Amino acid sequence: MGQELEPQVSDYEARVRASFGRQRFMEMIGARLVRLAAGEVEIELPHRADLTQQHGFVHAGVVTALADTACGYAAFTLMPAGVGVLSVEYKINLLAPARGELLVARGRVLRPGRTLTVCAGEVFARHAGEESLVATLLGTMMTVRDRPEIAD
Amino acid sequence: MGQELEPQVSDYEARVRASFGRQRFMEMIGARLVRLAAGEVEIELPHRADLTQQHGFVHAGVVTALADTACGYAAFTLMPAGVGVLSVEYKINLLAPARGELLVARGRVLRPGRTLTVCAGEVFARHAGEESLVATLLGTMMTVRDRPEIAD
Amino acid sequence: MGQELEPQVSDYEARVRASFGRQRFMEMIGARLVRLAAGEVEIELPHRADLTQQHGFVHAGVVTALADTACGYAAFTLMPAGVGVLSVEYKINLLAPARGELLVARGRVLRPGRTLTVCAGEVFARHAGEESLVATLLGTMMTVRDRPEIAD
Amino acid sequence: MGQELEPQVSDYEARVRASFGRQRFMEMIGARLVRLAAGEVEIELPHRADLTQQHGFVHAGVVTALADTACGYAAFTLMPAGVGVLSVEYKINLLAPARGELLVARGRVLRPGRTLTVCAGEVFARHAGEESLVATLLGTMMTVRDRPEIAD
Repeated sequence: MGQELEPQVSDYEARVRASFGRQRFMEMIGARLVRLAAGEVEIELPHRADLTQQHGFVHAGVVTALADTACGYAAFTLMPAGVGVLSVEYKINLLAPARGELLVARGRVLRPGRTLTVCAGEVFARHAGEESLVATLLGTMMTVRDRPEIAD
Repeated sequence: MGQELEPQVSDYEARVRASFGRQRFMEMIGARLVRLAAGEVEIELPHRADLTQQHGFVHAGVVTALADTACGYAAFTLMPAGVGVLSVEYKINLLAPARGELLVARGRVLRPGRTLTVCAGEVFARHAGEESLVATLLGTMMTVRDRPEIAD
Repeated sequence: MGQELEPQVSDYEARVRASFGRQRFMEMIGARLVRLAAGEVEIELPHRADLTQQHGFVHAGVVTALADTACGYAAFTLMPAGVGVLSVEYKINLLAPARGELLVARGRVLRPGRTLTVCAGEVFARHAGEESLVATLLGTMMTVRDRPEIAD
Repeated sequence: MGQELEPQVSDYEARVRASFGRQRFMEMIGARLVRLAAGEVEIELPHRADLTQQHGFVHAGVVTALADTACGYAAFTLMPAGVGVLSVEYKINLLAPARGELLVARGRVLRPGRTLTVCAGEVFARHAGEESLVATLLGTMMTVRDRPEIAD
């Protein structure tokens, strides 16, 4: 599938970083965009007690937010100038409780398209030097044209 | 389907409220459990600028967290004593940008089961006196037995 | 949501019936389009032994095909002239084994859109005079323009 | 993840083949189980005109049935003696119209578990000597114990 993953703008990295920087929620929870390539984005989140659910694991909603954001920006790396990106839908399987010092979310494009881009995301937990898969996501991102309030 | 929605513990409301109270993430974002019945839970979230994505709408991950939490606790209202609840998986369609003064998430049980409970969730945005549907979720919750660290 | 469900072509019923009639797979399994309204479609399938999986229940793929088709045509009732409809994605929860004399799939539009239409589907089994829910689907349908090979 | 994919019965291959052989629907559409390993199953389907939707592509429900069946049996290769396998839920993205001489569905286990096994499936179309991805599935399979009517 990789042969199609051609960026359409040369400054896609700066564009993604600027948009990520405007995500107040990512900033608030302490997430960092750590790696970026055409069709791929990696986000890290250090553990924080105020992100947990009732058993002390990181809340599934936070895990999902990381995977969704990594996938959305993975899609955005391949989009043309002047558009915005929105999540249409996603499905996530939570495979194991999210515990450990750090969560790492990786999003990648499975199929780019003019309007819809299908992405896969994975979230790993780093705990005591080991990385384990805690969630896997499959979702659809949309290229939004001609709506200035959604241009990134 | 409603005929099967029989709570198995009499204090299910107190149990859900106590568990919700331990969700540090729900507290941190300002979410409130506002309504509760057998198989149904409603959660509200007042708008806050630090919950937004790059266009100023509430982040899809937050919308998802609300719907997931409402569904998880809707399932938990019907579970027996001594167990915990975990989200197995869910899929959400984001129908419209989440803007407005308040988000309202409603979770309800579609099919209770001994191990798995299937739930539907909806998230509405209240804006200028009107309520509009912004997301719809379909997910699977699990009754966790014999794992003391996951007992609610 | 219902206020938006306005057909854009007056002959939407004839158009859906003609397209359904070209679905060789629906014909082959014995499915019938039994009811049709703006944003809603109902399909029936009498039980047949050659549609079963290893335990003698109707195969999950057949159940899914019915729900998907009902949703796709529910979306198509609201689409303009000259376009086609394709399924982008769907998620289905299989709630109970599909047994009985007849399966009934009902698809309805949750949110129509210019490009994407979000639909919900349910499949019921009629067995000994009772109807029970066996599956629930949430999916996304696409309006396909300017591709003559996909015009319905 | 692969380190955990240990079959619990030595004759898992014979068991899967026998169960697949009882799937009347797979037989009826002409599907063949072509490859089988611990945690992995491959199914092929030669094109047939009576499996198509209104545009002449193989029906999304058939594509889904192949991916679901490959995933269910991938999960079943890892299950203990005396149990059955059922699909709990799955989500599929249809990436391209399913055309070509042959469809190939590959299912593999992402995470085995005592009760739930999470699987990924892909469906490829072979057309004029080339293979292209037409669908990707993420789903949950269940180990069914103590229900003789669902023992495989």
